[in-house]
Amino acid sequence: MILVKIGGSVFSDKAGEPENFDTETVRRIAGEIAEFYPNEEFIVVHGGGSFGHYHASEHAIRDGLPGEWESDRRKKIGFSLTHQSMLRANARFIEVFLSQNLPAFSVSTSSIFLTERGEIVYADIEVIERLLELDFIPILFGDVSVDVAQGVDILSGDQIMAYLTKMLKPKKAIFLMDVDGIYDGKPGEGTLIPELAREEVPGLLERLHCTAAGTDVTGGICNKLRKAYEMAHYSEVWFVNGKVPGRLSGAIRGDGFGTRLR
Amino acid sequence: MILVKIGGSVFSDKAGEPENFDTETVRRIAGEIAEFYPNEEFIVVHGGGSFGHYHASEHAIRDGLPGEWESDRRKKIGFSLTHQSMLRANARFIEVFLSQNLPAFSVSTSSIFLTERGEIVYADIEVIERLLELDFIPILFGDVSVDVAQGVDILSGDQIMAYLTKMLKPKKAIFLMDVDGIYDGKPGEGTLIPELAREEVPGLLERLHCTAAGTDVTGGICNKLRKAYEMAHYSEVWFVNGKVPGRLSGAIRGDGFGTRLR
Repeated sequence: MILVKIGGSVFSDKAGEPENFDTETVRRIAGEIAEFYPNEEFIVVHGGGSFGHYHASEHAIRDGLPGEWESDRRKKIGFSLTHQSMLRANARFIEVFLSQNLPAFSVSTSSIFLTERGEIVYADIEVIERLLELDFIPILFGDVSVDVAQGVDILSGDQIMAYLTKMLKPKKAIFLMDVDGIYDGKPGEGTLIPELAREEVPGLLERLHCTAAGTDVTGGICNKLRKAYEMAHYSEVWFVNGKVPGRLSGAIRGDGFGTRLR
Repeated sequence: MILVKIGGSVFSDKAGEPENFDTETVRRIAGEIAEFYPNEEFIVVHGGGSFGHYHASEHAIRDGLPGEWESDRRKKIGFSLTHQSMLRANARFIEVFLSQNLPAFSVSTSSIFLTERGEIVYADIEVIERLLELDFIPILFGDVSVDVAQGVDILSGDQIMAYLTKMLKPKKAIFLMDVDGIYDGKPGEGTLIPELAREEVPGLLERLHCTAAGTDVTGGICNKLRKAYEMAHYSEVWFVNGKVPGRLSGAIRGDGFGTRLR
């Protein structure tokens, strides 16, 4: 089993038009998955890009419910709008995968997970496991979440990856990003790290000035590295450029260009 | 708590254009719910109408997976297309409810239920219960289902109603249909039954020539009556005309026109 996270910046331009979607890139990614399916089982998780974020930040979903009836009602409506926007992104993925003859199936993240301040505290992955047994490719997504501490929150695709890796122990968990992998410094400035041992991660986090809090709404590279550090207990973790043809298949084969975390 | 099932024939013309949706009727239904929300909690379940059915019958989803790789793959793709079509119907409901200032939230049926030949054998309603605590209005829908016996099947909105009634014991479960209620004979020909006691149902089923098997893809009036017979253990059940203004609110108040099953 291989988990693939398709980062928002890979399929969408967050600074562009609302809900823009790079069909060509997603079709190429699906094509690389098709080279290995059905010999390999796959689960795909995608981020938000230009979907979801608008409503999520407009309504400050991460701050939870304020606890006053009318403000709560407005925020709940924003919460629902955010989910619908993510469902539209997900529908585009499903459409592309099906057109490549891959039996992808949408699983609604917010229907099966509960969070506590954005961290998963409850999950039901029974349907996902059954879908895998039937050789479906479940496609999940970063989404809003019902939160036991603050009513509502956001559940990032990276969190879902970490949770599924822990529960399902895949051979590989691959993060597709819009940079070539993990850099020892700023992306494009520092040196790309081709191989990283788990025990080197804490030192790297320090060099990258990763503080306790995340750097963007769903966590940037610091959060990704922290999650990867947990995940490396259970699976090999790869960070590769999802924009460049062949990088995903390289990671699946195991000889690809990017960062490999053992 | 009140469960409302909006039948496919109430919001959509199955014989009309693919995916036609009667926004005006749904807006009016949402308006009748808004008269009682938030004093009452609501869960809404809708059927398929002109959504879903095309792919479901085209791919004979009810027959399960044939067990041959290429035919299975084609059927899985049809299964996924059916779900996406139902998500489009659901998105229309969510849009209308939100526009009426009702905090509706989409829960994806196929992400939380498993069936065995179309009957629910596994369910996780944790998220639904949390949504209710937060005064959301969860909106579910008849959908495809992963089936433990035959791989894939259809889970009807009526089945979901029966299951949720058993688990959540609402005050009322209300079925909105395109006829005035349950008739002692063919709709429009026999006499409308305003009040029905649970123990009268088996006799009525016999008079209606309801055989063991259902009459349409998700069960017609016979299946509805059989489900209502189970449900009446836990809740009052109403059958009213969803096309006629005021019938839903009448059922919610308890003095409405239709069939009431005690």
